[in-house]
Amino acid sequence: MNKLIPVTELTLDPGAQELLLKAHEEDIETAFDRAKEQEPHCKFGLTGVCCRRCLQGPCRITYNGTKGAKRGICGATADQIVARNLLSLIVEGAAPHVEHAREALHTLLEVAEGKAPYEIKGKDKLITLAKQLGLTVDGKEVNALAEEVALAALEDFQRQSGISRWLRLRGQEKSVQTWSELGILPTNAHLEIANAINKTAMGCESDPVSLLLGIMRMGLVEGFDGLHLSTDMQDVLFGTPKLVKTQYRMGVIKEDYVNIAVHGHIPMVSEKVIEWSRKLDREAKALGAKGINIVGICCSANELLMRQGVAVATNYASQELAIITGALEAMVVDAQCIMPSLAKVANCYHTELISTLPNIKLEGASHVNWTPEEADKMGEEIVRRALVHYPERDQARVQIPSDTVEAYTGFSVEQIVELLATLNQEDPLLPLIEAIAKGDILGVVAIVGCTNPKVKQDWANTELAKELMKNNVLIVASGCSAHSLGKFGLLSPAGLEFCGERLAGVLTAIGQANGLPALPPALHMGSCVDNSRIDNLLVALANRLGVGVRELPVAGASPENHSPKALSIGTFFIAQGVDVHIGVNAPITGSPLVEQALTANKGEFAVTTDELFGGKLIYEADPVVAAHKLIDRIIKKRKALGLVCPEDLGSVAK
Amino acid sequence: MNKLIPVTELTLDPGAQELLLKAHEEDIETAFDRAKEQEPHCKFGLTGVCCRRCLQGPCRITYNGTKGAKRGICGATADQIVARNLLSLIVEGAAPHVEHAREALHTLLEVAEGKAPYEIKGKDKLITLAKQLGLTVDGKEVNALAEEVALAALEDFQRQSGISRWLRLRGQEKSVQTWSELGILPTNAHLEIANAINKTAMGCESDPVSLLLGIMRMGLVEGFDGLHLSTDMQDVLFGTPKLVKTQYRMGVIKEDYVNIAVHGHIPMVSEKVIEWSRKLDREAKALGAKGINIVGICCSANELLMRQGVAVATNYASQELAIITGALEAMVVDAQCIMPSLAKVANCYHTELISTLPNIKLEGASHVNWTPEEADKMGEEIVRRALVHYPERDQARVQIPSDTVEAYTGFSVEQIVELLATLNQEDPLLPLIEAIAKGDILGVVAIVGCTNPKVKQDWANTELAKELMKNNVLIVASGCSAHSLGKFGLLSPAGLEFCGERLAGVLTAIGQANGLPALPPALHMGSCVDNSRIDNLLVALANRLGVGVRELPVAGASPENHSPKALSIGTFFIAQGVDVHIGVNAPITGSPLVEQALTANKGEFAVTTDELFGGKLIYEADPVVAAHKLIDRIIKKRKALGLVCPEDLGSVAK
Repeated sequence: MNKLIPVTELTLDPGAQELLLKAHEEDIETAFDRAKEQEPHCKFGLTGVCCRRCLQGPCRITYNGTKGAKRGICGATADQIVARNLLSLIVEGAAPHVEHAREALHTLLEVAEGKAPYEIKGKDKLITLAKQLGLTVDGKEVNALAEEVALAALEDFQRQSGISRWLRLRGQEKSVQTWSELGILPTNAHLEIANAINKTAMGCESDPVSLLLGIMRMGLVEGFDGLHLSTDMQDVLFGTPKLVKTQYRMGVIKEDYVNIAVHGHIPMVSEKVIEWSRKLDREAKALGAKGINIVGICCSANELLMRQGVAVATNYASQELAIITGALEAMVVDAQCIMPSLAKVANCYHTELISTLPNIKLEGASHVNWTPEEADKMGEEIVRRALVHYPERDQARVQIPSDTVEAYTGFSVEQIVELLATLNQEDPLLPLIEAIAKGDILGVVAIVGCTNPKVKQDWANTELAKELMKNNVLIVASGCSAHSLGKFGLLSPAGLEFCGERLAGVLTAIGQANGLPALPPALHMGSCVDNSRIDNLLVALANRLGVGVRELPVAGASPENHSPKALSIGTFFIAQGVDVHIGVNAPITGSPLVEQALTANKGEFAVTTDELFGGKLIYEADPVVAAHKLIDRIIKKRKALGLVCPEDLGSVAK
Repeated sequence: MNKLIPVTELTLDPGAQELLLKAHEEDIETAFDRAKEQEPHCKFGLTGVCCRRCLQGPCRITYNGTKGAKRGICGATADQIVARNLLSLIVEGAAPHVEHAREALHTLLEVAEGKAPYEIKGKDKLITLAKQLGLTVDGKEVNALAEEVALAALEDFQRQSGISRWLRLRGQEKSVQTWSELGILPTNAHLEIANAINKTAMGCESDPVSLLLGIMRMGLVEGFDGLHLSTDMQDVLFGTPKLVKTQYRMGVIKEDYVNIAVHGHIPMVSEKVIEWSRKLDREAKALGAKGINIVGICCSANELLMRQGVAVATNYASQELAIITGALEAMVVDAQCIMPSLAKVANCYHTELISTLPNIKLEGASHVNWTPEEADKMGEEIVRRALVHYPERDQARVQIPSDTVEAYTGFSVEQIVELLATLNQEDPLLPLIEAIAKGDILGVVAIVGCTNPKVKQDWANTELAKELMKNNVLIVASGCSAHSLGKFGLLSPAGLEFCGERLAGVLTAIGQANGLPALPPALHMGSCVDNSRIDNLLVALANRLGVGVRELPVAGASPENHSPKALSIGTFFIAQGVDVHIGVNAPITGSPLVEQALTANKGEFAVTTDELFGGKLIYEADPVVAAHKLIDRIIKKRKALGLVCPEDLGSVAK
C-alpha cells in the first residue's frame, strides 16, 4: 500500500480522501494503490504495439523507430498492429452497450408479452417512437405497440443485409450520406461485432485504412444499436427523465438507514431494487433503522438519478471506498465498470456484494439472478438480504464523510425543449440557437466518460468544465464525468459563479422563466448510454439550423477516460463530425498512420477522420490547455458558419 | 536477418530449406528471421497475465508469485486476467470459422436463389442434410431444397432463444446432455460472440470458473456453427471429397507453367480460380507456357486438394517461400493465416498478391472483389492478371526445389465408410471397430492445426505421427499439420514403413480390398473446418459402439499450433471429451486455476474439464514424449471399455 502519496493528490473528492485515509488505517488496498504499483506502464502496451493474437508471439514492435523489431513474426507492422488492437478495443467498448440494449429490448418484449413484471412507464415515448418507426399507432393497446417496437429493434440483431434500423431512425441524413459513401453503414449489431473480430484475427485484415474504417463502422454500431437503442428502450420502460433535484458525495450514505448501493449500468436491475426498497421500508423501521436508503455509483446511479432523483455516492475510481464507509449493507452490481476487487473489500465488512446478471458473475460475490421474469423475485431477495445484514453492521467501523452537494439533473432533450418552450412555445430551440448565434453561448461541449486512477479523480473533469464555462461554453454531461461535476456544484445553479457573463445570463434567463434561480451550467443528460441524448440534441440543433452536425460549434471531452466504452462513444461522435478530447491517451502513438488519421496532428498521411467526417481525436492531459484546444475548434466552426466570435465580442476569456 | 542459424534447424522441409537460403542470398526477410528477432518473448504475454483491456493500465501481474503486482489496477487477479484473455483468444479463433460458415451459407442461399454462378455439386449431401434437418425432400427441386437448408442454417445467426440448430444436428446425444447440464448450450453464433466479448470487457465478468464455462461454450460455437456448418455448406456446394491422389512440396510449382498459388481458407474463392484456370488454359499456351498450374497453401490448398486433387506447395510457416521461388505469377488470398509480410515479399518479384474478400483487405496487395454474385468475374480477372504477369517473370531468379512427394487424400467420413464397406457391406464400421477392439488399432489420434516459426517446421507434426504409428495408432489429419505429413510421405502407402505391424496389417487389408497397395497410415480428412469430419467419425464410432465420444480411445494433437483457431478447435474437442495435445503452450500458465482446470495437472482445484467433459489439454513440446502421453490416455480409455491393451498383446512399442 502506497501511503507516501498524500490523498489530496489522488482525488479531489474530500469524502474519497477521508475514506482513503480510513482504507490506509484499516490496511485495505484500493485502486489508487494498485495504480501506483503498475508504474511505469509497459510502453509497448501504452503505445499499442504489443500483439498477443497468436502463439507465434507475443510480439513487441518498435515504438520509437530506433531499435527493436519493425514487424511482428507474421510480418505485421506497427500501423497494422495498432489499428487491429484499436479495433479490438472499440469492439470491447461497443459490445457491452449493444448487449445492454439487447437486454433492454428483450425486457420490453417480455413486458409486452405479459411475462415480465415491469410497467411501461414511458407511454408517450413509446407512441413517439412507434410513429418515428413508421408503425401504425392508432387503436393499438400499449402492449401490442410495445411488442411491435421491440420486434423492430430486434431486427437489428437479425437482419443479414440492409442498414441498421436504429441508424435510419436516429442518424442525421447528412451524416448517413457520408457514412454511406464510405461504405461503413452497419447492418446488424451482432454481425458487425463478429465481422470486426474476424478482421482483427491473426492473418486476416492487415490494411490499416480498412481497419480504421472498421473502427468507424463499429462507432456507428455503438452509437445506434448501443447508445440510442438502450436509451429508447429504457425511456419506454421507465419513462423519459424530467428535471429533478438530488444530492452528491459520500455523505448521501446515511448512518441511520439500511444502505444499499446500486452499481453498474442496467436499470432493469436497479429499478427493481429501489421498488422493493420502498415496499420493504417498514421492515427496515422494524429493525430500528429510519428506512432503506438507495445510493448510486457509476451509471446505475445515473439511471436512477435521472428518473427517480436517487442520490449519488461516487463514481468509478472510488467505488471501493463506498464500502469502506462501513455502512453499506449491500452493494448490488450488474455489468460494466465493476472492479473485481470489490469482493475483497466487501469481505472486510458486513457488506454483501451481489451480482445479478446471468452472464456476468463475480468471483467472491453472491449471486441473485435477474431475468426479466424473475425481476421481482430478485428485487425482493436483494432488499431482504440487506435487511438481514443491517444488525451485523459494526458501528465502531462506520465512518461516513459528512457533506453532500445539491444537484439538478434529468435533462433529457424532451426536458430541455420543455424548459426552452417557456421562452418560445412555437419554436423552442430558437432561443438556444439565438444564444449560440449571438455568442452568448460560444458553443456546447459534452463532458462524458469516466474517472481513472491514473488521473487525480474529478480534477480533470471539473477543471475542463470550469475553463469552458468561463469562456461561455455550455456544458452537457453524462456518465461518471457528470458525477464529477455534480460533486463540485457544477450541476447546480450555484455553479454559475464559474461562468462567463454571457453564459450566466442565458442560464439565468431560461432558469427564471421556469421558476428556478438559474439553469446549472452543466446539464446532466444521463448515463453513458444516454450520450444518445446528447446526439439527439445535436441532431435537433443541426436540423433546426439546416446544417450538418459536423458544422456545429460543439465538441466532446472525456478528460479522465479509462473505459474502452469512452473510446467507442468517442468514435461515434467523431463519425458524426464532432471533435473528441481525451485526457488519457489511447494506445495509438505507436503508429504514426493511426495517430494522424485520428488526430490530424501531422501532415504525412492523406486521410484523416477530420477530413472524412469533420471530427477528430484530441489528446491533451492538461484540462485547461484542452479547454482552449476545444474553444479554438469551436471558434473555427463558428467562423465557418459565419457566427460572431469572441474577438468580435471583445471577450476571449473572462 | 539471422543467417547464423542453419536452415536445417528452422524447417524439416528440404524445399523450404533451399528457399530460405535463396531468401538470405536475396536479402529477403521471412517469418523465420522475425521469429528469432522476438526472442526472448515477453513473459507476461506468454503466461497470459498482461491486461490491456482499459486505459487504467496496461497492467502486468506477477506470473511467478514472488514479486510484482498481484492484481491489476481494477483488482483483477491472475486467474481472472488469464481466463478473460483466454476467452478473448478462443473468440478470435472461433469468429473466423463462424464467418467462414456464414459466407458459405450465404453463397448457397444465393446459388439457390439463382443469383450466384456456382453449381450445386453435392446433391447427395444436400438430400442427406435436408433429411437430417427434418425437411421434406420428396418432390422438391434442388434449388428449393438448398434454399430451405441455407435458411435453416441462417437461423443459427438469428434465433434469440433455444439451442443452435447445427449443434442439435451434429452433437452426440450424450455430449449434448453434458453441455445442457452445465448450461453452456449456445443459441446463436453471433449472439454468443457478442456475449463472450461482453463477458471479457473491463469490469464485467470476473469469476474465472464462469469464464472457463464461457470458453467451453465458445468451443461449441466453433464446433457446430463454425466447423460443421462450414463443411456441410461446402460439401453441398462443391461435393463431398473422395479418395484422390496428389503431390506435395515446393516442387509442385512448375517452371514452364503459369503458376497461381491459392492461399487462405475460403473455397468459394479458390474453386473459381481453378475453374477459370481451366477455362483460360489455352491462353497460357498462347503465351508459350504449358498451361496454368494451381498450387495450394494452407487450407485453400486442403479444400482443392480434397475435392480436386490440386497439389500443395507448402503450409503456414513457409508461405512466403513459395513466392521466393520467383515462379508465382499470382498469389490469391482470402482470409485467415495470411502473413501481412506477403506484400513485401511479392514486391521483390513479379508476383501479384491479390486479396479477394470484401472484409479482408491487405496492405500492399491488389484487390479483386469476391461476392457470390461476382465470383466468375473475380475468377476470370485473377487468372487474366496472372497471365499478364507470366512474361514478366525473371527467369534468372527462378529457383524451384525439385522434388515432390505423392499423397492420397480425400478421406471424408463418407469415403472412409465406402472403403470399409468392401469388408462389410452391411455394417461398414464394424471392421474398424473390431480392429480397435482387438488392439490392431490401438486408438485414433487426430493430428491437426498449424506450423509455427517457433517450432522447426513439420518436425513436431511428423515426429508425433511416426511415434504414434509405430505404436499402432491410426492417424487422421487436417489443416497444415496434414500438409506436414503429406510432405514426408505419411499420406501415402509408403508411410507404412513407420507403422507397427498390427496397424500395417489393418491398413493393408483395407487398402487391398479397395485395389490399393494399402491405406496411408494418416488419413487426410481435410481443412481446419473439416475437423468436423473427424468429429463425425468419432460420433459415428461412438454411436455404433453405444458409448459416449468421451469413452473412445482417441485423442487430438496440434504439435505446431500457432493460431487461436487451433485452440478453439481444441476446446471443441475437449468439450466432446477428447484429450487435446498442443506443442506450443497457450497463455495460461500465469493462472494455476485456469491451467489446472484445463490440464488437470495439479490437485489444488476441484473442477477440471477432464472431470466435467472427459477431455483435457496436454501441453508437451517434445513430440515423442507427447505421443506416449496420448498413448497412456488411450490405454486408460481402452481399459475403461474393457478392451485389450498393449501389455496383453506383448507389444508396447515396436
